[in-house]
Amino acid sequence: MKRPSGRVADQLRSIRITRHYTKHAEGSVLVEFGDTKVICTASIESGVPRFLKGQGQGWLTAEYGMLPRATGERTQREASRGKQGGRTLEIQRLIGRSLRAALDMSKLGENTIYIDCDVIQADGGTRTASITGAMVALVDALAALKKRGSLKGEPLKQMVAAVSVGIYQGEPVLDLDYLEDSAAETDLNVVMTDAGGFIEVQGTAEGAPFTADQFNAMLALADKGLQELFAIQRAALSQE
Amino acid sequence: MKRPSGRVADQLRSIRITRHYTKHAEGSVLVEFGDTKVICTASIESGVPRFLKGQGQGWLTAEYGMLPRATGERTQREASRGKQGGRTLEIQRLIGRSLRAALDMSKLGENTIYIDCDVIQADGGTRTASITGAMVALVDALAALKKRGSLKGEPLKQMVAAVSVGIYQGEPVLDLDYLEDSAAETDLNVVMTDAGGFIEVQGTAEGAPFTADQFNAMLALADKGLQELFAIQRAALSQE
Amino acid sequence: MKRPSGRVADQLRSIRITRHYTKHAEGSVLVEFGDTKVICTASIESGVPRFLKGQGQGWLTAEYGMLPRATGERTQREASRGKQGGRTLEIQRLIGRSLRAALDMSKLGENTIYIDCDVIQADGGTRTASITGAMVALVDALAALKKRGSLKGEPLKQMVAAVSVGIYQGEPVLDLDYLEDSAAETDLNVVMTDAGGFIEVQGTAEGAPFTADQFNAMLALADKGLQELFAIQRAALSQE
Amino acid sequence: MKRPSGRVADQLRSIRITRHYTKHAEGSVLVEFGDTKVICTASIESGVPRFLKGQGQGWLTAEYGMLPRATGERTQREASRGKQGGRTLEIQRLIGRSLRAALDMSKLGENTIYIDCDVIQADGGTRTASITGAMVALVDALAALKKRGSLKGEPLKQMVAAVSVGIYQGEPVLDLDYLEDSAAETDLNVVMTDAGGFIEVQGTAEGAPFTADQFNAMLALADKGLQELFAIQRAALSQE
Amino acid sequence: MKRPSGRVADQLRSIRITRHYTKHAEGSVLVEFGDTKVICTASIESGVPRFLKGQGQGWLTAEYGMLPRATGERTQREASRGKQGGRTLEIQRLIGRSLRAALDMSKLGENTIYIDCDVIQADGGTRTASITGAMVALVDALAALKKRGSLKGEPLKQMVAAVSVGIYQGEPVLDLDYLEDSAAETDLNVVMTDAGGFIEVQGTAEGAPFTADQFNAMLALADKGLQELFAIQRAALSQE
Amino acid sequence: MKRPSGRVADQLRSIRITRHYTKHAEGSVLVEFGDTKVICTASIESGVPRFLKGQGQGWLTAEYGMLPRATGERTQREASRGKQGGRTLEIQRLIGRSLRAALDMSKLGENTIYIDCDVIQADGGTRTASITGAMVALVDALAALKKRGSLKGEPLKQMVAAVSVGIYQGEPVLDLDYLEDSAAETDLNVVMTDAGGFIEVQGTAEGAPFTADQFNAMLALADKGLQELFAIQRAALSQE
Repeated sequence: MKRPSGRVADQLRSIRITRHYTKHAEGSVLVEFGDTKVICTASIESGVPRFLKGQGQGWLTAEYGMLPRATGERTQREASRGKQGGRTLEIQRLIGRSLRAALDMSKLGENTIYIDCDVIQADGGTRTASITGAMVALVDALAALKKRGSLKGEPLKQMVAAVSVGIYQGEPVLDLDYLEDSAAETDLNVVMTDAGGFIEVQGTAEGAPFTADQFNAMLALADKGLQELFAIQRAALSQE
Repeated sequence: MKRPSGRVADQLRSIRITRHYTKHAEGSVLVEFGDTKVICTASIESGVPRFLKGQGQGWLTAEYGMLPRATGERTQREASRGKQGGRTLEIQRLIGRSLRAALDMSKLGENTIYIDCDVIQADGGTRTASITGAMVALVDALAALKKRGSLKGEPLKQMVAAVSVGIYQGEPVLDLDYLEDSAAETDLNVVMTDAGGFIEVQGTAEGAPFTADQFNAMLALADKGLQELFAIQRAALSQE
Repeated sequence: MKRPSGRVADQLRSIRITRHYTKHAEGSVLVEFGDTKVICTASIESGVPRFLKGQGQGWLTAEYGMLPRATGERTQREASRGKQGGRTLEIQRLIGRSLRAALDMSKLGENTIYIDCDVIQADGGTRTASITGAMVALVDALAALKKRGSLKGEPLKQMVAAVSVGIYQGEPVLDLDYLEDSAAETDLNVVMTDAGGFIEVQGTAEGAPFTADQFNAMLALADKGLQELFAIQRAALSQE
Repeated sequence: MKRPSGRVADQLRSIRITRHYTKHAEGSVLVEFGDTKVICTASIESGVPRFLKGQGQGWLTAEYGMLPRATGERTQREASRGKQGGRTLEIQRLIGRSLRAALDMSKLGENTIYIDCDVIQADGGTRTASITGAMVALVDALAALKKRGSLKGEPLKQMVAAVSVGIYQGEPVLDLDYLEDSAAETDLNVVMTDAGGFIEVQGTAEGAPFTADQFNAMLALADKGLQELFAIQRAALSQE
Repeated sequence: MKRPSGRVADQLRSIRITRHYTKHAEGSVLVEFGDTKVICTASIESGVPRFLKGQGQGWLTAEYGMLPRATGERTQREASRGKQGGRTLEIQRLIGRSLRAALDMSKLGENTIYIDCDVIQADGGTRTASITGAMVALVDALAALKKRGSLKGEPLKQMVAAVSVGIYQGEPVLDLDYLEDSAAETDLNVVMTDAGGFIEVQGTAEGAPFTADQFNAMLALADKGLQELFAIQRAALSQE
Repeated sequence: MKRPSGRVADQLRSIRITRHYTKHAEGSVLVEFGDTKVICTASIESGVPRFLKGQGQGWLTAEYGMLPRATGERTQREASRGKQGGRTLEIQRLIGRSLRAALDMSKLGENTIYIDCDVIQADGGTRTASITGAMVALVDALAALKKRGSLKGEPLKQMVAAVSVGIYQGEPVLDLDYLEDSAAETDLNVVMTDAGGFIEVQGTAEGAPFTADQFNAMLALADKGLQELFAIQRAALSQE
C-alpha cells in the first residue's frame, strides 16, 4: 500500500499551530494539518445560557463553518441558504462536547466560552484539526479570564486532542487527507485526553463493515498520533 | 450495581417488533424496546436524487422525529420551530448510513426508499430502536418492490441492527433505558451486520473518559445483544 | 347511493378511544374513527403566554401534525420543510378554539395546556377525530391538575366533540372516510357541546354550491352523530 | 340593542368598489366596506402549477396581507418575521377556494390568476371585503385574457360575494365592524353565488355556543346583504 | 434628448402629499411622485430596542415593502417567500438613516417610531418618494407625541427630503420615472436637509462610469428639485 | 487633527495583496488594509442564472461574510441565525455591481464567477478592501478560464478598486480604520475604474450633514488613494 502523500501508515501530516492569529479574540489559533487550515477562536462572554442561570457555573459552546471555496468545488454558503446543514451541526456538537470534557465548569464562573472553527482550506480531517487547534485557543482564553479575575479556581482539567484514522486499501492509516478520506473503507475519529482516556470515538464503515481487529489497530494508531499532537500543543503553548 | 429496571447487565429490555402497523406504507413497523416505542415506515418513490440521476441505481434516505410529548417534559415541535435540531439531524443521518449499508444500490433500480422513524414514546435508545425496527420495514418494502418487478436483482446484502451500551455506575451495561442513560458515564451506540461486521460505533464520555478495556467490554456486550436482536428481526419476518 | 364502506347514511365508523396510550403526558389518548388514528396528548406547563400574564387565568393551545406516511402517498415532513403548511395551521387553530370553548379559563390557574394531535394513520376526518379524542385527554389532564391542587374551581364547563358530514353522490352522509371525502360535493365540519350548542361550523362546497335545505340536513346528521360521540367519550372516561 | 355605528341590524356599511385602482394589474380594485379598505388585484401569468401541467386547464390562487399599520396597534410585518401567520394563511386559502368556485378552469387555458388582497385599513370584515372586491378584479382580468385570445370559452360560471354576520348583544346583525366583531358572541362568514348557493359557511362561537335558530337567522341576514353586494358588483362592472 | 414623459431635464413629476390617509397611524401619508404611489405611516410605540434601554433617548426604525402587483410584472410576496430581499433591506436601512438625521433622539423620550413605507404603485423612485413622504408622516407623529406629553423638548432638528437624478441618454435629468430609470447610464439618489446639507448620496454607474463633472451636474439638479420638495412638504404640513 | 494611527490625512494604511492564498479557488487573494484582512476567492462554474440562459453571456455574483470573531465583540454567525443581515446583503450587492463593471459579460461565455469575500479580521473598510482584493482574484480566475479555452474574447474591460474616505474631527481623511470610522461625521465609499470613472459613490452623514465642498475634498482624497491601489494591484498581478 502506498499513501497518495507518500507518508508511512502511522505518520501525521505536517502540523502547525499558530497562536494569536487574529487580534480580537481572547484565544485565536490557525491550525494546519497539512493543507487543512482552520481558524479557531475562543471568545468570552459573561453570562450563561438560560438552563444554567443561577447555578454558579460556566459553559462552552462551539460553532463550525467552512468558507464556500475551502473545498475543491464551491459549496453554497450556509448563511445564504438560511440554515446550517446536518454535517455542520454534527461537527459543531462534537467539538463542543470534546472541549467541555477539558473543563471543570464549576470553576469557570458564570461565563460562556464560544469556540468558532472556520475552515479556510479543506483537505480532510477538518473536525479533528478543529478540536486540536481550538483546545489551544481555549487555553489562551482561560488565561485571559484568569487575568480578569473571573475564575473560581483552575477550570482546566486536562488537554484534549483529536485525530482521524481509517482503513485505506485494506490497511490502517493515521490522519487521512482528502484523497484517502474519499477512498477509505472506514473512517474513525478519535478524541482523547492527554491522560489517555477516550472522550469520543466515532467510526463509520463507508464500504465493507470493519472488524474488531481492524478497530483495535486503528485505535492504536490514533493513540500514537495523539501523543504527538499533545506534544505539539504543549510546544505551542510554551512560547509567548 | 443494581440497574433501575432490575435487569442484569447483559440483558436487553423486552423487545417487540410489530409489522404492518399502519396501512399505507410499503413497510410499517412498531418497534418497542421496553417503553421506547417508534413507528418506522419505509416508503417507495420512483426516481432518485439529482446527484444519482441516470446512473441506474437507487437510494435510501431517512428522517427522524419525536412527538412533542414522547418525552417526560414536552419538547417544542420542530415543525413549528421552523427547523430540525442538531440532535435530530445527527440521528437521521446515522439511520440513513446504517440502512444503506444493508443494500446493494445497483440492484434497487432508480427508486428511493424513504425511512421515517417517529418516536411516540421515549425511554432511552430511540436511535438504536429506530435502526433495528426500520430494518424490518425496509425488508417489507423491498418485497413490495420485488412484486412490482422494479428490482434488478437482490438488493439486500445483509441485515443491520443497533443497540446502545454504556458504563453505568462503573460497570458496562446493555441497552440503557432513560434513567440509566441520564446517569451513564459513557454512552456507546453500535450498529452491526448479522455477519458480524461493524457499521457504526459512536461512543461519548459524558463524565469521565473511558478506557480501552471498558471500550472492549462494551463492544462485547453489544455483540451479545445484537445477536438477540437479529434473532428477533428474523422471527418477525418469518411470520406472515 | 351506496357508500364505499357499506355504511348507511347516518352511520358513524367504528369509534375507539384508548386512554393512557402513552405514559408521559398528563392526558394521552389514541382515537380511532375507522382507519383514521390520532394520538392526542394534553400536557400541562405552568405559566401562560405573555398576553395573559398576571391576569390569574389559564390558556390552552393546540398543535397538529401528520406522520409523513400517515397518508397514501408520503407527504414531506413539515419539520424538514422548515414550516407548517396552511392546512396544518388552519386545523390546529380550529382544535384550539374548539377545546377552549370547553373551559372556564379563570378556574385554570396560570397554567397552559398544550394539546398535540398527531395523525399516525389518515383515512378522512382527522380534524374531527382530533377534537373528539383530545377532549378526553384534556379531561385527564384537568384531573392531574386537580390532584396537584393547581385549580381555582372546576374549569370544565362542557364536553365538546366534532364530526364531519357531507354531500356524497347527492345525499347527506355522516362521518366521511377518505374515499367519500375525495369525491364529496360538500364537506362540513361541525363542533358542538354536549349541551347542544354549536361551537364551529365550517362548510365548503367542493363542487356545486349547496342549498339551505342540504345544509339543514347535514346539520341534523351531525347532531345525531355527535350524540353518539358524546356517549363514547363518557364511556371512555367512566373506566379507570 | 344599539349598534355602535347606529346602523340597523340588517344594514350593510357604505360599500364602494373602485375599478382600475392601480395601473399595472389586469384587474385592480379598491373595495371599501365602511372604513375597511382593501386593494384587490388580479394578475395573469401564463402556465400553471406543476400538479396541473399538461391538463389543458387553468388555476387561480390567492394571497392576503395587511399593511403593518392597517390596524389600531401596529402588527409586525410578516415579511420581516419571515413567515405568514396562521390567520393569514387561513384567509388566503378561503379567498382562493371562494373565487375558484366562480370559474370553469377548463375554459381558462393554461393560465394562472394570482389574486392579491392587501388591507390598507382594517375595521372588521377584511376577508369578506377581499372576496367581494377580488371577484370584480377577477372579471376585469378575464376580460384582459379574452382580449389576448387566451381563453377556451367563457370561464365565468357565476359571481361570488361574501359577507360577515354575527350575534351581537344577543341579536343577529349584518356586516360587523371592528367594534362589533371584538364583542360578538358569534362570528359567521358566508360566501354565496349570485344564483343563491352556498360556497363557504364558517361560523365560530367566540363566547357562548349558538343555536340552530340563531344560525338560521344569521344565514337569512347574510342572504339579504349578499343580494345588495351582488347589485353593487354589477353596478361597478357596468361602468367603463 | 427627449424625456419619455415630455418633461424638461430639471422638472419634477407631479408631486402630491396627502396627509391623514389612513385612520389608525399617528402619521399617515400617501405620497405620489407621478405614478409612483407610496403609503407612509409613522407609528409610535413606547419603549426602545434593547441596545438603547435606560439611556433616556428614543429611536426610529423603518420598513419598506411593495405590494406584489405594484410593478409591471407581479413580484413574489416577500412574506410568502419567507424573507425580505437584499433590495428591500437596503432601501429600508436608507429610509431609517435618513429620517433619524431629522431627529434629536435625546428629546424623544423612550419611544420608538416605526416608519412603514408600502408601495402600492411603482413607477421609479420609490425610495426617494418614501423618504419625502415619510418625513411628513413623522412630523404628524411627533405632534401626536407632543399632545401625549411624551417629549422632552423639540426632537425635530430639520426637514429631510430625497430625490433621484441620473444620466439619461448622456444628459443629467431630475426625478427619473421607470422608463428612464431602466435605461439610465447612472442613477443617483440624494437625501438632503432643508438647511442644505447632504445626508446620503448614493450613485451607481449602470453602464459607463460617470465623471466628476457629470456628478456635479447631477447634484445641482438634485438640489433644485429638493428645494421644490421641501416647499411641497411645508405646504402639506401647513394645512389642517 | 491627529489620526489615531498617526497617519497623515491622505495616507493609506499599509496595503498587502497576497495571491494564491488558498489552493482550490481559481483566484484566491488575501487582502490586507492595515489590520483589516479579507480572503477573496473567485470561483468559476459553468452555466448562468435562469434569467440569462441562452443569451450566450456570462455572469458574476458576490457574497460577503465575516467570521464571528473578526470583530471586537463576537457577532452571531449568520448561518446559525438563519439569515444574512441587511448590512451583509448591502455589501455583497455593492461588491457584485462593482466587479461586474470590470467585465464585458458577452466575452465570458456561459460561465458564472462567484466572488466570496470573507473577513477574517475587521478594522474598518472591509467592503472597500473586499472589492480591491477580489478584483485581483477575478483577474486570476479569468486567466484560468482563458487556459480552459472558455472565453469568447477578452472580458476584462478595466480594473476596479475601492477606498473609503470620511470627515474625521472636521477634516477629510483617507482610508479610515475602525477607530476613525466609529467617530467619523461622514463616511464615503468610492469605487472607481483605473481609467478614472466613478462606478459607485456612497456617502452617509453619521452626524452633521456634509457640504458640497467637503464632498469634493473627499472625492479628491479618494482619487489619490485609488491611484495607489491600482498600482498595488498591478504590482501583485505582475508577479508569478
